Amino acid sequence: MLNRDISYFFDPKSIAVIGASNKEGKVGHTVFKNIINSKFKYKKQIYPINPNYEEILGYKAYESVLDVPNEIDIAIFVIPGKYVVPIAEECGKKGIKGLIVISAGFKEIGSEGAEREEELKEVANKYSMRVLGPNCLGIIGLNYNGSFTIDTPKKGNIAMISQSGAMLVGLIDISMNESYGFCCNISLGNKADLSAVDFIEYLADDEDAKVILCYLESIKDGKRFLEVVPKTARKKPIVILKAGVSQAGARAASSHTGALAGSDKAYDLAFEKCGVIRAHTIEDLFDYGEIFLFQPIPQKNSFAIITNAGGPGIVATDAFSNEDLKFAEFSERILHDLREHLPQEAAIFNPIDIVGDAPPERYEFTLKTVFGINSKVEKNLGNQINTYGALVILTPQAQTKPTQVAKIIKNISHTYLKDKPLICSFIGDKSIAEGRKYLKDNKIPCYQFPDRGARSLKTLLKRRAFLEELPLEERTFPDFEVNKTRVLEIIEEARNDGRKVLLGIETAEIFKCYGIQSPKSKLVYTPKEAMDTQPQIGKTIMKIVSPQIIHKTDIGGIVMNIETPEQAFEAYIQIVDNVKKFGPQNAKIYGVELQEMINFDEKEKVNELILGMSQDPQFGPMLMFGAGGIYANYLKDVSFMLSYKFTEDDARKMLQETKIYRILQGVRGEPSSDIEAVIEVLQRLSKLVNDIPDIVELDINPLVVFVKGYSALDIKITIK
Amino acid sequence: MLNRDISYFFDPKSIAVIGASNKEGKVGHTVFKNIINSKFKYKKQIYPINPNYEEILGYKAYESVLDVPNEIDIAIFVIPGKYVVPIAEECGKKGIKGLIVISAGFKEIGSEGAEREEELKEVANKYSMRVLGPNCLGIIGLNYNGSFTIDTPKKGNIAMISQSGAMLVGLIDISMNESYGFCCNISLGNKADLSAVDFIEYLADDEDAKVILCYLESIKDGKRFLEVVPKTARKKPIVILKAGVSQAGARAASSHTGALAGSDKAYDLAFEKCGVIRAHTIEDLFDYGEIFLFQPIPQKNSFAIITNAGGPGIVATDAFSNEDLKFAEFSERILHDLREHLPQEAAIFNPIDIVGDAPPERYEFTLKTVFGINSKVEKNLGNQINTYGALVILTPQAQTKPTQVAKIIKNISHTYLKDKPLICSFIGDKSIAEGRKYLKDNKIPCYQFPDRGARSLKTLLKRRAFLEELPLEERTFPDFEVNKTRVLEIIEEARNDGRKVLLGIETAEIFKCYGIQSPKSKLVYTPKEAMDTQPQIGKTIMKIVSPQIIHKTDIGGIVMNIETPEQAFEAYIQIVDNVKKFGPQNAKIYGVELQEMINFDEKEKVNELILGMSQDPQFGPMLMFGAGGIYANYLKDVSFMLSYKFTEDDARKMLQETKIYRILQGVRGEPSSDIEAVIEVLQRLSKLVNDIPDIVELDINPLVVFVKGYSALDIKITIK
Repeated sequence: MLNRDISYFFDPKSIAVIGASNKEGKVGHTVFKNIINSKFKYKKQIYPINPNYEEILGYKAYESVLDVPNEIDIAIFVIPGKYVVPIAEECGKKGIKGLIVISAGFKEIGSEGAEREEELKEVANKYSMRVLGPNCLGIIGLNYNGSFTIDTPKKGNIAMISQSGAMLVGLIDISMNESYGFCCNISLGNKADLSAVDFIEYLADDEDAKVILCYLESIKDGKRFLEVVPKTARKKPIVILKAGVSQAGARAASSHTGALAGSDKAYDLAFEKCGVIRAHTIEDLFDYGEIFLFQPIPQKNSFAIITNAGGPGIVATDAFSNEDLKFAEFSERILHDLREHLPQEAAIFNPIDIVGDAPPERYEFTLKTVFGINSKVEKNLGNQINTYGALVILTPQAQTKPTQVAKIIKNISHTYLKDKPLICSFIGDKSIAEGRKYLKDNKIPCYQFPDRGARSLKTLLKRRAFLEELPLEERTFPDFEVNKTRVLEIIEEARNDGRKVLLGIETAEIFKCYGIQSPKSKLVYTPKEAMDTQPQIGKTIMKIVSPQIIHKTDIGGIVMNIETPEQAFEAYIQIVDNVKKFGPQNAKIYGVELQEMINFDEKEKVNELILGMSQDPQFGPMLMFGAGGIYANYLKDVSFMLSYKFTEDDARKMLQETKIYRILQGVRGEPSSDIEAVIEVLQRLSKLVNDIPDIVELDINPLVVFVKGYSALDIKITIK
Repeated sequence: MLNRDISYFFDPKSIAVIGASNKEGKVGHTVFKNIINSKFKYKKQIYPINPNYEEILGYKAYESVLDVPNEIDIAIFVIPGKYVVPIAEECGKKGIKGLIVISAGFKEIGSEGAEREEELKEVANKYSMRVLGPNCLGIIGLNYNGSFTIDTPKKGNIAMISQSGAMLVGLIDISMNESYGFCCNISLGNKADLSAVDFIEYLADDEDAKVILCYLESIKDGKRFLEVVPKTARKKPIVILKAGVSQAGARAASSHTGALAGSDKAYDLAFEKCGVIRAHTIEDLFDYGEIFLFQPIPQKNSFAIITNAGGPGIVATDAFSNEDLKFAEFSERILHDLREHLPQEAAIFNPIDIVGDAPPERYEFTLKTVFGINSKVEKNLGNQINTYGALVILTPQAQTKPTQVAKIIKNISHTYLKDKPLICSFIGDKSIAEGRKYLKDNKIPCYQFPDRGARSLKTLLKRRAFLEELPLEERTFPDFEVNKTRVLEIIEEARNDGRKVLLGIETAEIFKCYGIQSPKSKLVYTPKEAMDTQPQIGKTIMKIVSPQIIHKTDIGGIVMNIETPEQAFEAYIQIVDNVKKFGPQNAKIYGVELQEMINFDEKEKVNELILGMSQDPQFGPMLMFGAGGIYANYLKDVSFMLSYKFTEDDARKMLQETKIYRILQGVRGEPSSDIEAVIEVLQRLSKLVNDIPDIVELDINPLVVFVKGYSALDIKITIK
């Protein structure tokens, strides 16, 4: 049984350092010194383990953890990789709960190391120990520094998890001049045992962690990610920079769905589903961390921009537009007040330009007015205030007093704007440095240029949208009546037959089992049977059924437009004849399929769609919807969604994300297509692929949709 | 006649300051002080003009420029706006060449100011004076500061032009801590006379200006921009941040082409045509300026990344991939050398990871190896070196020596890499600050994170591509035989008839005049004439022609599938009957049109395209190509190109930018469509809209294209 409580990594009562050293410059020395110099409260319960020393930095050294007379919570390994496993065994015997293996020499060096890593995992399992690393930098908690970083980062409320130790070092270095700090910095290393998901799960209830930032290159267990992360995300913001977008390369793809989904698409979908904010640059990662930490989430997308210069106001407007941020519309009363008190040249409509000679008081007046906190007006305004946040821009002109403006902004924000974000862009360097520092020290994000501010505000809105969604566990799913048993049988039969791609009659039956309409289809074995069956089908196409015959038309294996039983009789004989004459020698004949032909001429409106599924290695089945037909791969008008907890709303959103959706709605006087039916097909498809994990790829192209109804014309299912 | 030589603004021999003042804090004081404190060589030829003073800061003051005993090159105005015009008149009389009007109170304050601005322009014209401003910050040249900025920016080789004075102040402030400087800073103000284009033209031959950076909100004269800017761009890089992307709003658009082109599209197209690099943020503007100033343009898209940490290497790889930057493939010999000398854990394939403990020497060895400048190997390698630039990444780990690494990088770059760009990303702050500063001071761009570096490298490649293009003036255009006179007649007739939208028979004839195929069409006036005409047309559709009848089908104004002369006779009578019975009373009947019906069943492959043109207010006719048909507006699979100097290559590029191009090429065994014919249509269309500026909008939807040939089925032309 895995021990899910990993609190001892964050707040150990006693620590052994395996390989602690007296020699300056050695990692074993740095780590040991970091611990004793940090705020670790239980100074008497630090145990250097090293057979070569009597004592280290004033602490009695032991030959082995087994010699330590007291209990030990965690052991930090700073010895060469090859010695780790036997000593881990000793740790297990000692009853140690957690190992931090800083030592390298594991999976990252190839097969020998990978074997060693497996052994380490086995030992850990045997004694129910959890392992951070190996090949990591360690962990820095609020109460101790169990790493070999040179700087101990500032304390604060960001929990930082990094798959790259070097990246962590660089980021800590950058953070030293920032106003935020960390409650923990975790270097994951090889993730032999503990991964980001484990820490995200733990941090949900860690009150010191207000925001979780992650740098990740891969995710080990996508399924657990989907289960665990949304629960933490409900409690606090999670921002992930997922690197290696380009390295994943093309997904091995024999299906349309696989080919059309980029290799990184599933991460986007999983993050969105889990409420994770995705950062695309390192700068964004920290910008988002900072704004979540220091500023509230706005109730509405309705902001003011206040600037002392037109140009930067225009640049900010472009940035707002890029991020779909909306300008607050001011009430008549507010406009009146602005007009009355601002200079004639001022622009009083959003963005408000208070012009170049603006003294601090003008910033104050304008801010208070748009937020309705001027004593004169606030009583009368009530619900008329439509400003839910603001960006204040300052350029250092002759009369500008950046630091005083900063103080005013801070006072207004701290006194009045508990639930409205306020951010700044002070455009300059030397002249505004003091003002910017004052703002940042007082929890007001201040960017050099407006675009980063706009991205940060947008991020707050994304979080609001996530929090307003129904939690995944409360969502409901329609209870479709399906015949799963029969589908499993069909797949079993195909597998016994050595086939990975199902036959048309099989896919038709599977769809029938899951209530998805496709043309009527029946397999027959004699001309008589064909004759008897045709009337049930109506206008019919007849096809030879044989896995060895791929190009049926070329050998006369298909006859179309059969309208009478007699024609069906004749067609059977003709097809089998043709196959014998022109088909491959080894062809195994399963029979002849009678398939219903749709009469398109009778339909008022026909559109070709593509629906499909491919398995993502991390996150499982991923559904696709889009414009279908032979050009589907070129048009690329498709959308994707993970099938995990897939709702009707998800299906609707998939449709809405495509261009063909507008066409389905009916343009230029056309009637609407049967959109609701397509939405139901997507949900049924989702149930099918979730119920039957053996389906690895599925394409319907085309699914034709009419004003009423639809038909899945061409279905391809590949099984494991 | 406009005086195009504006060198006196950059290097005046004598300056008058109208409104110079002794009072600290007044703009007239700041400007005057800036001039005398700057490097202006002709200190004796500075003339303060102010009737209230005897002398100002030691200079004799004059009541009027007319009182100054010597010649004056330029006058700088710092008096209230309302006094500017009469004094400008005096300047004209005095023979002053240029006016810098810092004074506000012109167009920016409304109609009164706009009138004043017109008067100023008239006076300037009268005396052949050129005007910078009004409502500007002034100009800072290499030899004098004729502005009211507080800081005088560092000298250097960037020419900076800004439409926003405040933005200029902010940017100068930022630049004070950077390694680049300026040969001029120009604040354009209201652009009553001189605009960015004038300065770009002048700067082409200014040897101090190595790079031109512009912040612009609008472009006054698009046509001159297209003529002038490419010539300067051939000589030096021009980077423009064009703000106000979102403000332009929707283009007033009654055509498909107008509706499908975003309001900002024409700027993108014009900049690309002119070789202007477009910056999308202020940060990019300076990043691009810096790299152009300090690093050479690579010969190929083939770069190395060298990093001391895996994570940042992955982030950089993502950034490279985003910008389509290619990794150099190392020769066997280089790989061999790297393997031999780098530690076992190092990754020797690009990106090269020289691992966390890398000392400066390892950076040096690796850099020299990938660039083939190790003495051991260089002789043997010859052409095997495939590295045309590099990004060096450093994270501050325990053994890292950032400043020493910086010195090595500088030495290699300055000694060996005259034509290969070298840039850095030092990820950190405090620990690497000294190294970063050393690099930047030595002309090696160093970014906090790799993504900005990747964007900068991409920008160098864009410039290479532009320089490799044939200059606009050397491009050739096919000499189509056309009948322009007849087209002008048709348009004149329509205009006399009070119509803005041409009739089908008119558009058909216009297309015939320009050699673009559309269905045969003839207007007839009697049943007999219809009968006689039908055999020339073949399968025919007959339509009533009347500008008042929009929905022809509804009133029986159309008869299709006419295959014999007799049917044509009958149809004529029937149509005119129907119109009399069901048409509007006031309908003016022009006759009945016989139009050829294309027999699609005979065609092997038919695709619907849309081609069109809309007039951009700045840059003239803009062509469109894309997927046509009734869904064109929803599919939005279109591309655009300015019709200015539109070549066959441009047309081909337009096709290649769309998704439908792949379909035209033929997919899944289909034959190729007649792509060359479509390319010719675009060129002919371009000639048409350039020849006839009265055409304000033109749509062909659909133009159907076959395996051989095409037909412009539905043409709409709107005239002025």
